Amino acid sequence: MSSQFTVEKTQHPKTKPDQQNLGFGKHFTDHMFLMNYTAGEGWHDARIVPYAPLSLDPAAMVFHYGQAVFEGLKAYKTEGGRVLLFRPDQNLERLNISNERLSIPQIDEALVLEGIKELVRTDADWIPTAEGTSLYIRPFIIATDAALGVHPSPQYLLIVILSPVGAYYPEGLKPVKINVESEYVRAVRGGTGVAKTAGNYAASLRAQEEAEKQGYAQVLWLDGVEKKYIEEVGSMNVFFKINGEVVTPALNGSILSGVTRRSIIQILQDKEIPVVERRISIEELYEASVNGTLEEAFGTGTAAVISPIGELNWEDKQITINKGEIGQVSQELYDTLTGIQNGKVKDTFGWTFEV
Amino acid sequence: MSSQFTVEKTQHPKTKPDQQNLGFGKHFTDHMFLMNYTAGEGWHDARIVPYAPLSLDPAAMVFHYGQAVFEGLKAYKTEGGRVLLFRPDQNLERLNISNERLSIPQIDEALVLEGIKELVRTDADWIPTAEGTSLYIRPFIIATDAALGVHPSPQYLLIVILSPVGAYYPEGLKPVKINVESEYVRAVRGGTGVAKTAGNYAASLRAQEEAEKQGYAQVLWLDGVEKKYIEEVGSMNVFFKINGEVVTPALNGSILSGVTRRSIIQILQDKEIPVVERRISIEELYEASVNGTLEEAFGTGTAAVISPIGELNWEDKQITINKGEIGQVSQELYDTLTGIQNGKVKDTFGWTFEV
Ligand SMILES: Cc1ncc(COP(=O)(O)O)c(C=O)c1O
Ligand SMILES: Cc1ncc(COP(=O)(O)O)c(C=O)c1O
Repeated sequence: MSSQFTVEKTQHPKTKPDQQNLGFGKHFTDHMFLMNYTAGEGWHDARIVPYAPLSLDPAAMVFHYGQAVFEGLKAYKTEGGRVLLFRPDQNLERLNISNERLSIPQIDEALVLEGIKELVRTDADWIPTAEGTSLYIRPFIIATDAALGVHPSPQYLLIVILSPVGAYYPEGLKPVKINVESEYVRAVRGGTGVAKTAGNYAASLRAQEEAEKQGYAQVLWLDGVEKKYIEEVGSMNVFFKINGEVVTPALNGSILSGVTRRSIIQILQDKEIPVVERRISIEELYEASVNGTLEEAFGTGTAAVISPIGELNWEDKQITINKGEIGQVSQELYDTLTGIQNGKVKDTFGWTFEV
Repeated sequence: MSSQFTVEKTQHPKTKPDQQNLGFGKHFTDHMFLMNYTAGEGWHDARIVPYAPLSLDPAAMVFHYGQAVFEGLKAYKTEGGRVLLFRPDQNLERLNISNERLSIPQIDEALVLEGIKELVRTDADWIPTAEGTSLYIRPFIIATDAALGVHPSPQYLLIVILSPVGAYYPEGLKPVKINVESEYVRAVRGGTGVAKTAGNYAASLRAQEEAEKQGYAQVLWLDGVEKKYIEEVGSMNVFFKINGEVVTPALNGSILSGVTRRSIIQILQDKEIPVVERRISIEELYEASVNGTLEEAFGTGTAAVISPIGELNWEDKQITINKGEIGQVSQELYDTLTGIQNGKVKDTFGWTFEV
């Protein structure tokens, strides 16, 4: 296919990193996709260029007022050498939802999807193939106008960068310990929780740091109004299996609508495992653990796919889940979803897009 | 005084803008102050260099996770030619409060104050002298580490830029119309409202934009929990004179503690005008307007100093204040505070710092 974008190839290809030691978001490929927005002209100059620093005026709005949104998705190389994107349409749709909330102009989803495909093709040699590895794709939009008034910027830059990433759990799925956060709040209804915007992550750093100091891997966020209802876990949506039924917090205006979350719900329905989206309080969860009906718990997100939870710390109470071991449904969901993603399981849902 | 910083003077001084037409934050001076932070080494390399674009890796944390804080203060040139900073110590103290919330390392306030003074001295010719004008000073810190994990950055850049700014109300103080926002939320207790961090301003753009479309100048924010209690107005703190007493919302964990706010409280106390910090609901305010005891209303902030409010729109109710005209106390506070700032009124509080 001939490209609808200009492609400027690098003259200085980088050395590729060791596939056994990739980590997450530490290495970047040789190229990036760029597109500019200017009021009046709209989005223009979509292009692929060598990966290089951005030059921005110190007054650029993104530095001061955080007008910025992003997405995260992955490309996989199958055993047969095909390259698959997982549900990129969903990510680009969500990018526009984030744009709407942040007063950033809408993008042409089809055009950016083509840009991502072309970029992945250009850097296809960078897609790792070791078990559990993938190519992480990070589209983001930043406000670049050099002025200090608090107003939506008349200028933006859309950028897509690629990072080969390692298995999230190099030694296999391992349940983690989570701290239930009762002081800090990630998002509140009427705020920006439904958008993937920079400030939400800045707001989460402090609680995450304190949880880590106490030996927890992540934070479980409660709602910002009553500090009672479960929202998310770290940068993931969260699911609980209680008495045979899988429960996940309903989208309430402050929870991010995860692509993995909606995929997991569909897989559960497909497997005829009962699944429900509803409000669930930390007290209800604690009671389920006491009366023995809390069977499994896991987070879902693009980075880890499924992240089993072995223990929750809620104030002075410890909630151990499935003796700290991975549950059967969690494992099954992980196998099915990663199998679809890397082409080992037949994709009956039409979720994978070949590059 | 000999500088403790290296100063690299520009070879290409810019043409200075017309003092009658400055606007806010549109023009920048010839130099900027920079300082780097690296884990292990701490803050280092404080320096003054020509104003120039920043070169940052596209993976720099500030673009993705908004780990960024800032301050805003002003320098004035007195009729006698002295240069005064208004309470810069308070801004640098607040910068460290913001740093704490955002997991950014603390700065040496005294050193940055010296840096600001030296920078203002270097660009002293840029300080405008026309009535109501000043030099706006913008210190900010951004996370620069090029990695996509959601973690506090091990690298930062502190930057100070300067912008000659015009009178906020070129034709004199003019009361504005404000919309009471009942859908969007700026900040919530446990969130980042007490910090001056980029994401708070991103979160406010949408409501501000919608208010402007309906002909309002700004938004009045209610609390994020009950959407009942008054918090701030736009990027300002807010005061009401009710039945002879001045009331401002108490600092509650989601309101920014303004330097102008605390100065106004002190001036009121000094003038023996009753002033109280307490919780105040929009309903109480509406009732005061109905029974005729709501006498004045104004916002306070570095940019406008005092911004009188002539009308509030709360759902379908219009609240007109003092017939839409500026109140006597508002005017008196404006005259006193701007007088202290520009050296025309004796500074009995010790608020001005000579450069
Ligand atoms: C706050 C938050 N919640 C949930 C998710 C999960 O979303 P997804 O499954 O689309 O990756 C993410 C991001 O990945 C996130 O940042
Ligand atoms: C959200 C917010 N509230 C209040 C203020 C007023 O603070 P100060 O008086 O220190 O300028 C500001 C900034 O200026 C602000 O950004």
